[in-house]
Amino acid sequence: MERDRIATLMRDLQEVICTGLEGFEDGARFGRDTWQREGGGGGVTRVLQNGARIEKGGVSFSEVHGHFPEEFASRLPGSGTAFYATGVSIVIHPLNPHVPTVHGNFRFLEHGDKSWFGGGADLTPYYFHAADKEHFHGVLKTACEKHAEVADYEAFRDACDRYFFLPHRAERRGIGGIFFDNLFVDDDDARARTAAFVNDAGHAFLEAWLPIAKRRADTPVSPEQRRWQEHRRGRYVEFNLLHDRGTVFGLKTGGRTESILMSLPPRVQWGYGEKPEPGTPEHALLKELRRPLPE
Amino acid sequence: MERDRIATLMRDLQEVICTGLEGFEDGARFGRDTWQREGGGGGVTRVLQNGARIEKGGVSFSEVHGHFPEEFASRLPGSGTAFYATGVSIVIHPLNPHVPTVHGNFRFLEHGDKSWFGGGADLTPYYFHAADKEHFHGVLKTACEKHAEVADYEAFRDACDRYFFLPHRAERRGIGGIFFDNLFVDDDDARARTAAFVNDAGHAFLEAWLPIAKRRADTPVSPEQRRWQEHRRGRYVEFNLLHDRGTVFGLKTGGRTESILMSLPPRVQWGYGEKPEPGTPEHALLKELRRPLPE
Repeated sequence: MERDRIATLMRDLQEVICTGLEGFEDGARFGRDTWQREGGGGGVTRVLQNGARIEKGGVSFSEVHGHFPEEFASRLPGSGTAFYATGVSIVIHPLNPHVPTVHGNFRFLEHGDKSWFGGGADLTPYYFHAADKEHFHGVLKTACEKHAEVADYEAFRDACDRYFFLPHRAERRGIGGIFFDNLFVDDDDARARTAAFVNDAGHAFLEAWLPIAKRRADTPVSPEQRRWQEHRRGRYVEFNLLHDRGTVFGLKTGGRTESILMSLPPRVQWGYGEKPEPGTPEHALLKELRRPLPE
Repeated sequence: MERDRIATLMRDLQEVICTGLEGFEDGARFGRDTWQREGGGGGVTRVLQNGARIEKGGVSFSEVHGHFPEEFASRLPGSGTAFYATGVSIVIHPLNPHVPTVHGNFRFLEHGDKSWFGGGADLTPYYFHAADKEHFHGVLKTACEKHAEVADYEAFRDACDRYFFLPHRAERRGIGGIFFDNLFVDDDDARARTAAFVNDAGHAFLEAWLPIAKRRADTPVSPEQRRWQEHRRGRYVEFNLLHDRGTVFGLKTGGRTESILMSLPPRVQWGYGEKPEPGTPEHALLKELRRPLPE
């Protein structure tokens, strides 16, 4: 399976996801910014803002090549500095605080003699519903089980919990999902099998989120609930700017800033020392996010 | 000059600054949270929120001691890991976008055989007024010149420009001020002289900002100007979480999260690919912030 076919898979995923989201939105449409990267390659960033249901959503495709900074290259599998990378990133910030924010990323990298897939999908609710968590995880589990040779749901789930964690808050970012990296593809067979998994996981993304979004999108919203959503979005920003490897690396090595930071929520608040009262739905979310991490 | 007297200087500075700000606010008052640090010492965090003129302001005093993580200690002047630190941090986010955000920090550190002062003050306007910049810098310059043996305004000004810079935006955070570090105080005489400078610079903080704040605080505000302010505050968050040494170090080594992140603005927006039209006051600010840095 050639680079081109993998890039086409990613490009198709972007279109399928945008179309699915526009169906949910039923009004606003994704824009389309095509950009070139100075060092080689480029991308298509698609953003929808101020929709009736999606306050800000971004679905970005890129296919880039060139040379990594030496220090970064030395910390990656593979030799030398030359690389090729293609992938899709999705972050949806819904207007209604009862609809969870969702993030997904699916990518393929070649670096020297090594090539591998990585990615995942995770959910960040403002109000916790066990049924939503079960549905989201269930869909991703099914996608993994269909490709048991390359995908291990339990391992990917635990990796997700460990990755999306804010140590300074002692909180998970959300209620998890799957996270995988370094799925090496040394021969054409492994490449085809892993690409098939990533493709299915990418298509499962909407199936995992949309039913939840649809059943929560018309829930009435109080000003306090909106405030809580904007406050919690602050945690999302903290994670992305302090900890997210892709964000920090992208910004520090001259990636396209607007495409990288499209992940940041549209409206955010930071108060001081705010704590929800025990017994409230807000407190129930914190309880869920503060569960101990898997070993 | 003993540790205790330096801590008292910092503590007094906190009170003087809070009192001055409450005079400007004329209504809302600073709260007072006293906290203990597990590793040794503690602090007093004072925050004012939702004032008539100050949307969120924090003035934090701390006096802490203990041991630095080894890797961090090895990058600092001085030997071993034992340290003592005391200081004041101030960040004021005004409600009116015509009033600039202001930040100040004054600190004293002992690490092994070395001890030194550091700090500074800088201004982050949403609309650029050359007269405000001149006033702010003028007051700080006067404070430095009074202590020419230890304070070099030109060097501190250039260091400030270089430090408060967002490479991924190719923008300065604001219009500068002074920034100094490693003002070593090996003997009692140097200690007294440097403390006197830091004390004067700390007291100059209000004199540098208040006249500007007073003359801009009643300027009428359009929704577009408010939007611009919240958009620009996003850059403030980006700087603090991606680049500010104190913030990143504090969070990663178990500092008090709420005190460290009191610097984050109360309400923030992130859009996508927003650019002000040439010829507008918003564009004039960007032009100022994108001037080349000093060598």
